[in-house]
Amino acid sequence: MPELILDRSKCLGNIEKMSGIASQHQLSFRPHCKTHQSAEIAGWFREFGVSGVTVSSFRMAAYFADHGWEDILVAFPFNPHDIKILEQMPGKCRISILLDSPETIPFLKQADRKVDFYIDVDTGYGRTGVRSEDISTIVKIIHTARMDPKLNFAGFYCHAGHSYKTRTQHERVKIHQKALKDLQALKEHFKEFAPAALYGDTPNCSTQDDFNGIDEITPGNFVFYDLVQRSLGSCTTEEIAVALSCPVVSKYPSEKRLLIHGGAIHFSKESLVLKERTIFGEVALSGEPGWERSEPAVYLSGISQEHGVLEHCDALFNRVMSGDSLYILPVHSCLTANLMRYYRTLEGRVITTMN
Amino acid sequence: MPELILDRSKCLGNIEKMSGIASQHQLSFRPHCKTHQSAEIAGWFREFGVSGVTVSSFRMAAYFADHGWEDILVAFPFNPHDIKILEQMPGKCRISILLDSPETIPFLKQADRKVDFYIDVDTGYGRTGVRSEDISTIVKIIHTARMDPKLNFAGFYCHAGHSYKTRTQHERVKIHQKALKDLQALKEHFKEFAPAALYGDTPNCSTQDDFNGIDEITPGNFVFYDLVQRSLGSCTTEEIAVALSCPVVSKYPSEKRLLIHGGAIHFSKESLVLKERTIFGEVALSGEPGWERSEPAVYLSGISQEHGVLEHCDALFNRVMSGDSLYILPVHSCLTANLMRYYRTLEGRVITTMN
Repeated sequence: MPELILDRSKCLGNIEKMSGIASQHQLSFRPHCKTHQSAEIAGWFREFGVSGVTVSSFRMAAYFADHGWEDILVAFPFNPHDIKILEQMPGKCRISILLDSPETIPFLKQADRKVDFYIDVDTGYGRTGVRSEDISTIVKIIHTARMDPKLNFAGFYCHAGHSYKTRTQHERVKIHQKALKDLQALKEHFKEFAPAALYGDTPNCSTQDDFNGIDEITPGNFVFYDLVQRSLGSCTTEEIAVALSCPVVSKYPSEKRLLIHGGAIHFSKESLVLKERTIFGEVALSGEPGWERSEPAVYLSGISQEHGVLEHCDALFNRVMSGDSLYILPVHSCLTANLMRYYRTLEGRVITTMN
Repeated sequence: MPELILDRSKCLGNIEKMSGIASQHQLSFRPHCKTHQSAEIAGWFREFGVSGVTVSSFRMAAYFADHGWEDILVAFPFNPHDIKILEQMPGKCRISILLDSPETIPFLKQADRKVDFYIDVDTGYGRTGVRSEDISTIVKIIHTARMDPKLNFAGFYCHAGHSYKTRTQHERVKIHQKALKDLQALKEHFKEFAPAALYGDTPNCSTQDDFNGIDEITPGNFVFYDLVQRSLGSCTTEEIAVALSCPVVSKYPSEKRLLIHGGAIHFSKESLVLKERTIFGEVALSGEPGWERSEPAVYLSGISQEHGVLEHCDALFNRVMSGDSLYILPVHSCLTANLMRYYRTLEGRVITTMN
């Protein structure tokens, strides 16, 4: 069976680096846990002074609250379906949510607990959030919420996820600067509430130098990184902290093709276009310990439910046999980790997740 | 939370239809269980005379053996990592495997149990299998295996998965006829062994009329169907038997955009290009019971880990509110079911899976 191998030392290095970026810019650091979904890994952040986390669902919030976290931001616009689970969260836990419309506030009023909310601001991504220029909707949210003393307006949240669609650092800088400018303007406009600004996807947190006006960063993927992040300049191959160990199943000499056990139910179907080829992973060679970059690169070029195909393997082809295992770096580590549900460290220990 | 809703009546209709196709052509019917991964759903096939199943891994084989199946084909080239789990399979269970090279046979010899094997034949897909014209490798596999009386050569297996890459029925007929011709030739060439021919992806089993030379079909996806199958002409919208019920989270009036809770960890990242747009699902309207086609169609146009975005919703936009749920038909039901791990029937009952 394929297994997701975690290089703890690389992972700690990534945490230390991002924690250093936060310190350097005097930013609070609230890492997003949707990437690892693991209480043990979240625990590693405590050594770096982290006391609050970000999650992507109330189910995940409940898991981390069960594991002792008392300051949790659910970075997903609140919806009425989550009222019950919100009410069940421990009273001593500070729960923050996102709002991007006044529509759900009447539902929130039914919940018998204090909630901090951030207004989700869209600076150009176009997924969620009030558009940053739409002051009237922001005013409406703040005013509707103020009628309920249980609801506390804590600030603005922005995920500039369009950074993932960029091809150059110049484009990323533009997106980043637009987000900073919009957040600064909103903080100024609503300064009577002393709102905080929460921000930070992994590409921008990993590569930008200016965080003027930002109070807290919430990146997630950096804990493992992956091939998408490498393609965006967020990390090097050496920093990618997880790899799927996949059995080599069969060899097809005439095409120098290898079949591995490792498919869409292990990697996810996330792909990346690299040198005009669509890839689903990249082979890393066994190192001591862990893995290292393979030169020339060999890509996972096709996957179906359980099958993975490595085409035109050339040099690698003769070095592996059916029954060997290959390390494959994932395109998108969040989705791979979600599917695999546990990690095995290089030392052989299992680390569980919420799944 | 998003939930995967199963319309049992549509599902039974799909099973009955495929069972009818098998009967009509006097084919044995060994459905692939990788789509549903559920002992209860596999049980529904028994009413149609099915006594053997196909699975995609030994882990899945063990699950179905635990649930009383005694004739299981693991339709994945055998690899040495699976020796242990093979040995643990109940002795009374007929286990068949695929071989596409003589390399793994020495490992199989270590296993203390009888195994039937089919030679996986590649008629043009290029994923697994001995190329159908490569008689010498087939001879080598048969002869190497004959030295071990525990190994029984049962026939040929072919998955013509390149049918999924086609755009027209004409192309599918060509692929199908090539597979039939190759399998017939191999049966004739190796007639001293009276080999069976196992065949059958869902598109070909759903749309072809000629199964000359085939003994057994092994389709899987037809049990639920999905948008990919609809695009290949395998099914109608009305036959799609699963839909993800997703909460509507937020509405963005200026873009007529809806945000749903339902993303890559629910649907999978499988996409489909439809009318030059990449989509991840399609809205189905609530019917009585279940769901029915929405006209005009509204597509899930973007997904991230937990978010789903429906753009340009027009008519639908004004009909839904935050807190409602929408049925979304999946692009690839196998991957969606694998992620969701259970079904809720229209009557509200939970059906579990191996996960």
